[in-house]
Amino acid sequence: MAGEAASALGLSMVVLAEHPDDAACAVASEVVIGTPRKLDDLRALAERCQVITFDHEQVNLDYVAQLSREGAIVRPGADALHMAVDKGHMRSVLVEAGLPVPAHVVIENGPASFDALRAFGAEHGWPMVVKTTQGGYDGKGVWQLGEASEAADLLEALAQAGPLLLEELVPLDAELAVMVARRPNGERVTWPAVETAQVGGVCREVLVPGRLDPSVTEAATALGGQVADLAGAVGVMAVELFWSKGQLLVNEVATRPHNSGHWTIEGAVTSQFENHLRAVLDLPLGLTVPQYPHVASVNVFGGPAGHPLESLLPRALAFDGAHVHLYGKETRPGRKLGHVTVCGAEAETVRARAWGAALALGSPHPPGLDLPDGVTT
Amino acid sequence: MAGEAASALGLSMVVLAEHPDDAACAVASEVVIGTPRKLDDLRALAERCQVITFDHEQVNLDYVAQLSREGAIVRPGADALHMAVDKGHMRSVLVEAGLPVPAHVVIENGPASFDALRAFGAEHGWPMVVKTTQGGYDGKGVWQLGEASEAADLLEALAQAGPLLLEELVPLDAELAVMVARRPNGERVTWPAVETAQVGGVCREVLVPGRLDPSVTEAATALGGQVADLAGAVGVMAVELFWSKGQLLVNEVATRPHNSGHWTIEGAVTSQFENHLRAVLDLPLGLTVPQYPHVASVNVFGGPAGHPLESLLPRALAFDGAHVHLYGKETRPGRKLGHVTVCGAEAETVRARAWGAALALGSPHPPGLDLPDGVTT
Repeated sequence: MAGEAASALGLSMVVLAEHPDDAACAVASEVVIGTPRKLDDLRALAERCQVITFDHEQVNLDYVAQLSREGAIVRPGADALHMAVDKGHMRSVLVEAGLPVPAHVVIENGPASFDALRAFGAEHGWPMVVKTTQGGYDGKGVWQLGEASEAADLLEALAQAGPLLLEELVPLDAELAVMVARRPNGERVTWPAVETAQVGGVCREVLVPGRLDPSVTEAATALGGQVADLAGAVGVMAVELFWSKGQLLVNEVATRPHNSGHWTIEGAVTSQFENHLRAVLDLPLGLTVPQYPHVASVNVFGGPAGHPLESLLPRALAFDGAHVHLYGKETRPGRKLGHVTVCGAEAETVRARAWGAALALGSPHPPGLDLPDGVTT
Repeated sequence: MAGEAASALGLSMVVLAEHPDDAACAVASEVVIGTPRKLDDLRALAERCQVITFDHEQVNLDYVAQLSREGAIVRPGADALHMAVDKGHMRSVLVEAGLPVPAHVVIENGPASFDALRAFGAEHGWPMVVKTTQGGYDGKGVWQLGEASEAADLLEALAQAGPLLLEELVPLDAELAVMVARRPNGERVTWPAVETAQVGGVCREVLVPGRLDPSVTEAATALGGQVADLAGAVGVMAVELFWSKGQLLVNEVATRPHNSGHWTIEGAVTSQFENHLRAVLDLPLGLTVPQYPHVASVNVFGGPAGHPLESLLPRALAFDGAHVHLYGKETRPGRKLGHVTVCGAEAETVRARAWGAALALGSPHPPGLDLPDGVTT
């Protein structure tokens, strides 16, 4: 999707990809085969680019810092990336700035960790949440512990996973996400906060503006901007929030275009992808105003049947106003394959159409999420 | 732009290009190096594709027909392409169907052509318009003759150009264009007709809905649909119209996405590029409803200064809501390099912003076209 935005602006995007058939390669002007986990591969990319940016955070921060020292322009830089790469660091930066986060503690996984975990549970209650501080995404690297007796196995399994984040299980009234685009000089624009629905830690739908009171949405939008400033983000940043007992808490951050912002492609004047490019290239940022009263964006996952998406596309495109985005990935059960966005005047109509098209593409109905009236699998 | 739409839908686009650095190659999944003027190059393309379509009409119709006979799916087919490739044929098909066109005659350029030209002038007045029936576009292949004495030189220069179309010089009150998307089964959708401004035969701006009475726009939209049906178009078709003395006349047609339809990328629910792909792949067509009361799209041409666009982009993107599309071509005076679209509530505001951004990109002010108030070069 970043490649599509780059093409529109006449920019040449060079992609560092592990395989020439990776989806991003199809729209890249040029492909460098390699991995961000090797410094020499990153150097080969840097030689071809004016500016290096990211679409994931599986990044070695030492290499990023080294590239910068060697004269490459890397945006966001290592400091901002650190917020996204290391959840423990992210929490401590937010706490230091007085921003609201769930109760938590970071522990080294070692001989004392069982006691630390039991103490945290005694203070903040069970179940609790255990996260690896690095490497998790889309629900990976996150576990719920119902009681202390379950801890030993998990701690053993995570012996090599580095520091762990113990966190209170926040009773959720809703989840929100805010996308911010920020230039090197700190100038920034913010899309309005949206409501997200996660199942198993994976985003299933994004509703704009969602069902929360506008005052909550506005407070969330402002909080997102504060977090981006604090991180010194350059490019687009996603800030995921909990809404719990009348309070907003920062849950996760990502310093890149994010699933919560896919709705902006059709739903806002400027998409997150275009503003990400504009921000990292230090160009004026585009307007973030929504273009419709309501937007719904629903993720498409591979279903158990494994029908090829191609054969299902006609049914999905028959839904009025369904903007189908497929990521060029092979169908596999549970794999995120694309998303559908629908914009319009009525919240229920756009949500129903987006779900209708997503289910038509073979995406399963996630358990525990209410489908709109009239939508059936 | 078709490549960007293909990428969004997860489709693989294979491009037949003469050079690997042609702009379309940057977003193609695959490139076949060759020319549509060689049957074997077209065969090499056909081997890699489910469906072949076009983004220009410099096409050998015999080869297209041959490809179809060999089992390739070519959309639009040779018959529809014939309408776009041969202006004489296009005029005769429209006349036969009773659709309105300028007074004209097709002549073979030979010993009798000077007399034929003088006779046409005597009947329809001077100046008259002379066009090559094939190979013209963007003002190329079109001449105005002020009087009979100017004819000899032109006829000599066009001795090898094939049949010529002589046409009355229509007194223009306005020009319009209609984009239609049509599936193989004849199902079609039509975007509302737009007003276009041409200078020297080249489109400079597109205004949606434009300044004409809605009844004219509606009649134009309906006429566009009739022409597409008559052509048996599959994919997107552009129908360019004259509005003259209270009458609509069909001027030109193109059986492909067209400059007059670039506004649909941001201005309509579904873009001409996406619906072209949906139509040629026989998928359900997307809604063509405009998303804003007013849209202005202004073409960007290389100016005499020859500034690289990159250095001018910051100024252009500073215009609120300016969607800048650059085609990845090297700057050259007079070359069409891109376009800018702005959408909004007020006709004058969107036009002023689109022109502001286009001029900021170094595009010259075309003589004879009034700029919006407050916009200066």
